[in-house]
Amino acid sequence: MQRYRVGILGATGLVGQRLIEGLSNHDWFEIAGLAASERSAGKTYGEACGWVLGSAMPDPVSRMTVTRCDPAALDGCDLVFSALDRPVAAEVEPEFARAGFAVVSNASAFRQAPDVPLVVPEVNADHLAMVEHQGHGGGFIVTNPNCSATGLVLALAPLHRAFGIRRLFVSTMQAVSGAGTAGPSALQMVDNVIPFIPGEEEKLEEELSKLLGDRDGGTVRKISIPVSAHCHRVPTIDGHLEAVSVELEGNPSPEDAIESLRAWRGQIEGDGLPSAPAQPVEVRMEPDRPQPRLDRDAGKGMSAVVGRVRPCPLLGLKFVVLSHNAVRGAAGGTLLNAELLAARGLLPRRDGR
Amino acid sequence: MQRYRVGILGATGLVGQRLIEGLSNHDWFEIAGLAASERSAGKTYGEACGWVLGSAMPDPVSRMTVTRCDPAALDGCDLVFSALDRPVAAEVEPEFARAGFAVVSNASAFRQAPDVPLVVPEVNADHLAMVEHQGHGGGFIVTNPNCSATGLVLALAPLHRAFGIRRLFVSTMQAVSGAGTAGPSALQMVDNVIPFIPGEEEKLEEELSKLLGDRDGGTVRKISIPVSAHCHRVPTIDGHLEAVSVELEGNPSPEDAIESLRAWRGQIEGDGLPSAPAQPVEVRMEPDRPQPRLDRDAGKGMSAVVGRVRPCPLLGLKFVVLSHNAVRGAAGGTLLNAELLAARGLLPRRDGR
Amino acid sequence: MQRYRVGILGATGLVGQRLIEGLSNHDWFEIAGLAASERSAGKTYGEACGWVLGSAMPDPVSRMTVTRCDPAALDGCDLVFSALDRPVAAEVEPEFARAGFAVVSNASAFRQAPDVPLVVPEVNADHLAMVEHQGHGGGFIVTNPNCSATGLVLALAPLHRAFGIRRLFVSTMQAVSGAGTAGPSALQMVDNVIPFIPGEEEKLEEELSKLLGDRDGGTVRKISIPVSAHCHRVPTIDGHLEAVSVELEGNPSPEDAIESLRAWRGQIEGDGLPSAPAQPVEVRMEPDRPQPRLDRDAGKGMSAVVGRVRPCPLLGLKFVVLSHNAVRGAAGGTLLNAELLAARGLLPRRDGR
Amino acid sequence: MQRYRVGILGATGLVGQRLIEGLSNHDWFEIAGLAASERSAGKTYGEACGWVLGSAMPDPVSRMTVTRCDPAALDGCDLVFSALDRPVAAEVEPEFARAGFAVVSNASAFRQAPDVPLVVPEVNADHLAMVEHQGHGGGFIVTNPNCSATGLVLALAPLHRAFGIRRLFVSTMQAVSGAGTAGPSALQMVDNVIPFIPGEEEKLEEELSKLLGDRDGGTVRKISIPVSAHCHRVPTIDGHLEAVSVELEGNPSPEDAIESLRAWRGQIEGDGLPSAPAQPVEVRMEPDRPQPRLDRDAGKGMSAVVGRVRPCPLLGLKFVVLSHNAVRGAAGGTLLNAELLAARGLLPRRDGR
Repeated sequence: MQRYRVGILGATGLVGQRLIEGLSNHDWFEIAGLAASERSAGKTYGEACGWVLGSAMPDPVSRMTVTRCDPAALDGCDLVFSALDRPVAAEVEPEFARAGFAVVSNASAFRQAPDVPLVVPEVNADHLAMVEHQGHGGGFIVTNPNCSATGLVLALAPLHRAFGIRRLFVSTMQAVSGAGTAGPSALQMVDNVIPFIPGEEEKLEEELSKLLGDRDGGTVRKISIPVSAHCHRVPTIDGHLEAVSVELEGNPSPEDAIESLRAWRGQIEGDGLPSAPAQPVEVRMEPDRPQPRLDRDAGKGMSAVVGRVRPCPLLGLKFVVLSHNAVRGAAGGTLLNAELLAARGLLPRRDGR
Repeated sequence: MQRYRVGILGATGLVGQRLIEGLSNHDWFEIAGLAASERSAGKTYGEACGWVLGSAMPDPVSRMTVTRCDPAALDGCDLVFSALDRPVAAEVEPEFARAGFAVVSNASAFRQAPDVPLVVPEVNADHLAMVEHQGHGGGFIVTNPNCSATGLVLALAPLHRAFGIRRLFVSTMQAVSGAGTAGPSALQMVDNVIPFIPGEEEKLEEELSKLLGDRDGGTVRKISIPVSAHCHRVPTIDGHLEAVSVELEGNPSPEDAIESLRAWRGQIEGDGLPSAPAQPVEVRMEPDRPQPRLDRDAGKGMSAVVGRVRPCPLLGLKFVVLSHNAVRGAAGGTLLNAELLAARGLLPRRDGR
Repeated sequence: MQRYRVGILGATGLVGQRLIEGLSNHDWFEIAGLAASERSAGKTYGEACGWVLGSAMPDPVSRMTVTRCDPAALDGCDLVFSALDRPVAAEVEPEFARAGFAVVSNASAFRQAPDVPLVVPEVNADHLAMVEHQGHGGGFIVTNPNCSATGLVLALAPLHRAFGIRRLFVSTMQAVSGAGTAGPSALQMVDNVIPFIPGEEEKLEEELSKLLGDRDGGTVRKISIPVSAHCHRVPTIDGHLEAVSVELEGNPSPEDAIESLRAWRGQIEGDGLPSAPAQPVEVRMEPDRPQPRLDRDAGKGMSAVVGRVRPCPLLGLKFVVLSHNAVRGAAGGTLLNAELLAARGLLPRRDGR
Repeated sequence: MQRYRVGILGATGLVGQRLIEGLSNHDWFEIAGLAASERSAGKTYGEACGWVLGSAMPDPVSRMTVTRCDPAALDGCDLVFSALDRPVAAEVEPEFARAGFAVVSNASAFRQAPDVPLVVPEVNADHLAMVEHQGHGGGFIVTNPNCSATGLVLALAPLHRAFGIRRLFVSTMQAVSGAGTAGPSALQMVDNVIPFIPGEEEKLEEELSKLLGDRDGGTVRKISIPVSAHCHRVPTIDGHLEAVSVELEGNPSPEDAIESLRAWRGQIEGDGLPSAPAQPVEVRMEPDRPQPRLDRDAGKGMSAVVGRVRPCPLLGLKFVVLSHNAVRGAAGGTLLNAELLAARGLLPRRDGR
C-alpha cells in the first residue's frame, strides 16, 4: 500500500513532537509537511523546535522546512493532524476541511460541534460515520477527547456496555505534560499540587456524555449522567491518574467489573490498526497499582490500566485508572483515529493522487 | 503558673521531633523526659535522633538522655505525649495510664476504644469529659485523629453544625511526611503517585463518624453517614490536600457554605489555648488555592485552608481542603489536646507535685 | 527616625515579591511606590501580580496602584530598589540615578560598570564609597551580585582575608527560583537536572574578582585568580548549593579554615543593620549538611551555611556552601545594601523631604 | 550455541531486577537460579520481590523459587551474577568461586582485591586475563566499578589514551536508584540535594586508578593521578550526571577532545557483544545537554553521553558526562562483563555440562 502523506499542524509543540515520534516508521503514514506559527515558518524543523522528548528527533524531520498553517502550503498532503491550540484551531481547521483535507485533530475547538465526531476508537468507532454529513466537500474534521477524558472513558465504556452507568465521581491527578510545553513552572510544581486546571472539569464532564452517546445520523444523542469531576495537577511528567466512584445498574461486584474490563475489546477488534493495543484496558490486582511512572507505558502507552477495583460505600464501585496523557490521551489517540479512518475507507487521497 | 512536666514517648521519630519543636518555649509545658526504643535508650537525644526538621534541634534537648518507654523512667513527668507506632502504643499507653499519667496520644491504637475520646478541640472538646469514666485511677488516654481525618473534619464540622451532612466523597493527595521517617523512598515517589496508603481509607471513614458523634456519658454515639474515601500519596513534603464533595441538608449555596466556614470558631473560643489558631478554617477565593507549599503554614500550621467552594453536580457542594499533616494533623493536634486538658482542669499533677 | 520612602522597580516579579516581603514592617524603610511594565501599570498590585510566596501579600500593598518605571511616577520616593530584568535595567536605572535617586539594584546590567560598586556588605562595604564618584548629581547605582556569587563569596571572603586564595573550582546546584517566575518548566525539571544556566558561569567568575578586589578611588582593582565554574539547575525551590575546591596560601588545615569561617564578622560588625545575620557564615559538622531544604533559612535566609570542610587531593581544601538565593542572593542582599547606605549616611532624602 | 545457565545472587534488589530485565530473551544466557536472603528463600520470586521497574516482571521468572545464596542450591548454573550488598558479597562470592563458579559481580567487596579484575570492557578488557591467576580451581571473581566511576571512566578513557590525564576534578549529581531500594526517603529528597554519599568519593578516586592502570601478570599497576571528587544525591530516578575538569598532556582543544571521544571504540570492537552499544561515548553539541531524563537511555542505557565540552580556566578542559547508573553503571555493566568472558572463551561450563 502506498502510504498516506500527512501534514502536522502545530508541529513544534509537545503534541506535535509526540505525533512525529509516533509517525516515525509508520506503515500507513509518512510525514510530508510540518506547519507551525509565523515565528517558525521558513526555518528547518531542527531550528524551530525545542525538542523535549527522550527519543531523538528523526534526522529527516529535522531537515524539513516548517511552513505556515495554510492549506496551500500543505497541498502535497492527503490529510493533516492538528496539534494546534484551541483559538488557532478554531480558525485553521475549517479552512483545511473546506480545502478537502481530512483533519484529524487533538484540539478542543470542535469537540462539541454537533456534526463533528469525538472518537476513541474502541469506544465509539461507529460515530465516525458522522463525517459524511459535514458537508465540507470531501474534507472533514474528526477529534479525540481531552487527555483526562480519554483514560476515563476507556475504563467506563466496558462498564457502561455491560451494566449501564448511573452516576460518577472522578478526582484526577494529572501530569505536567498535559499542559504542553507552556505548562506550569517548576517553581509552581516542586513540592506542590495545584487543585485547578482551567476548563478541565467542564471538558471532562461534557466529553464523557458525547463519547458514550449514540450516533443519530449526522449527530450524537448525548447520554445524561451526573458526573462530578475534581481536577488536580501533580508533579509527574506523564500519566494521568484518576480516582473513580461509579454507580452501575444492578450493582455488580468488583469481580464482575474486573471481568468485564478484562474481556472488553471494543469496536475495533477486527480492524488491525497498527497503534491499537492488544488490550485496551489492563487490570492489575496489586493493592498499590497503577502508578504513573511504572504503568504509563502499558501497551506502548495506548492501554489504560485499572487497579484497586473495590466496593464504594457511596456509589457501589470504586477504582483508579491511569493512562498516558501524551500518548493515548493526545498524539496516540489522534493517530489511532487516523488509522481507523484509513481502515474503514474514510480517508480520501486528495486531488487524484 | 508552674509549667507541667511533659515526657515524650517515641521522641526520636518525625512526630516526636515535631512535638519537641512545638514545646520549645511553651508557656504551659516543659520537656522533662524523652523515651524511645531500646536501641536509643541510654544515648543522648543528639546521638539517638536523626533530626530531619529545618528548625534546629534545641540545645538542652540534644543533651537529655533518652530512656526506655517505661513509667518508672518518666516518673518525674506529669503527663506524657505519645508519638509511638501503633503496636508499641497498644502495649505501652495503658501502662502509663494505669501508672496515673495523662497520656495524650497521636497513635491510632486506642482511637476507636469506646471509652477513649478522639478529639479535635474546635470540633468536639466536649468529648474530653469521657476521660473521667476510663477508670485507670487518675490516669487516662486521649487521642487525636489521623492526619487526613483532622484536616477534613475541620472543614466538615462547621458545615455539619450549620446544615447537617448526609453523604461524603473525599479524594486525598497526602504528603510523604505523613508516613514518618520510614515512609516511601524517593525511588517510589519522584515522578510518581501511589494510589494506596494502608489502612488510611478505613481510618478516615471511621474516625469522622466518631469525631462528629455525640458524647453519651463515657462513650460516643457515632453518626452514620456514608463516606467514600480514595487516598493517594503524592510527592509533597508537608500538607494533605483533599478534594471533597458533600451532600448537606437543605442544599446550601456555596456562598452560605463559605460564610459558615468563615464564621465558625468551634468549642474552644474562650479557652485561650496557646496553639489554637485565630481562625480554625480559612477560606480562599482564588481559583487555584489552597496549594500545599503555599498554604500549609496558615495559622502556623494549625488552620485548615478551604478553597474552590462550588456546586457539585452530584452531591450539591464541592471544595478542596488543605491542612498541615505534621503540625495540625499530628504533633500540633496532640499539643492542642494537652492544652485543652490543662485549660479545663483535667490535667492532674502527679504524686502531689 | 522618619522612615525612608522606597519605590520598587519590577515589583511584580519574584524578586519584587521578596522585596515586598522583606520590607513589610521594616523599621527604616516603607514602601511608597510600586512600578512594573506597561502591562501592569494602572492596575492595583493585587490585580497585577501573580503572588507565588507562602507568606500572604500584605493588604496595604495589594491596594496600591502600580505605575510605570518612570522617575516622575515615583517622585515621592527617596530611593528605589531595582528588581528589573537586565535589558530594562540597562535603560531605566540610569534615568533614576540622573533624577537623583539612589538606585539599589539586584539587576546585572551595571555590576561590571567601572564606577558602580558591587557589594556584599560583610565582604566589601568599603566599596560603597565609589558612589561619590558616579557623577549623577546626587543619584547613583549600587548593585549586589548574582545569587550564586553571593553565597560563594560569603564563604570565600573569610578564607581570602585569613589566607589568600590562589585558585578555585566550583560546581553549583541551583534552585529554580533563581530563574524567577519565568524559569524552567516542571516538564523540564521533574526527574531531571539541566547542566546549563545561560551566562551564569561567566558572571560567577567575573563577579568574584570584583567583590574580592580593592577599591581604588572611584573604581576597583579586581583580583586575578583562576576560577572554574560549572553551573547546574536542579529541582529544588530555594537554596543554591555549591561544591568548592580551593587552593589557599599556606595550605591551612580544615580545622583552621573552619575557625576562620566561624570567627569572621566582616566589615559591618558595628553597623547594626536590621537584616544582617548574627553570623554571616555558619559551619556545620554533620557529614551530610548543609542541605537546601533544611538549611536555607539559616539566619532568616541571610547566612551562608558551610559544611563538609575537608582536604582536597587536588587543591588542598574542599567544602560545600549553601545560601538562600532568593533572600541573601537577591532581595535580602539588595535590602542589606540599602540598610548599609542608610547606616553610613550615604542615602539622600530627595527634594528637601 | 547452547545458552549459559546463570544464577543471580541478590535477585530481589534493584540491581537484581535490572539483571533479570537485561537477561530476558538474551541470546547467550538464560536464568537458571535466583538466590536471595533467608527471608526470601522458599518463596516464589513473584512473592519475594517488590518489583519496582516499569517493565513487567517476566512471567516464568515470577514462578521460580528463590533459594539461599549457597553454591549447592545453584548447582545447575554455569556462572552467577552477584548483586549482593558488600558485607554479604564479602562472604558469599569466594564460596562460589571456590565451588568453581565464575562470579560476575556488581558488588564492591573485591573491586580492590589485587588479583580481581575491575573491568569496563571498552576500557580495559585486557585486565580479564587476571582471572587465570586467581587460583580458585576454575572459579573466579570479576567485578565492574561503582556506578559513578563507570560513566566517568567511559569519558576519560578515550582522553587518557589519546592525550594522557594529569589531574582531575569531578562533581557528581547522582540519581536515587544508585542507592538501591533502601535508598533515601522521599522525605529526604523532595525539594532537596544531599551533599554526601557514604564512601562514594573514595570509591570514585580509587577505582579510576585501577581501571586506567596496566595489567602486570595477575595484578594491576594503578596509575597515579590526583583526583578530587565531590558527590551529591539529587532527586532524579536514573542517570548520574558528572561535571568534570581535566588536565591533559598537550592541552588539546575542545574540538580535538570531541573528535577523540567520538572516534573511540575501545577494546571490544570485534567481540560482537550483544549488550555493547554501537558508540560507547556519544557527544552532544547543544548547550544544555546531556540531561538525565532525556539522555540516560542513549545506546539502550549503555552509552555515556558527553556534552558542554569547553575550555577550563584552571585545568584546560571541562565537560559534563551522563550515564545510566542502573544499566551501564550496574546490571548492564555486569552483563557486559559476562558477555566479554563468554566471547573470549573464559567462561567455563561447570561439571562437564
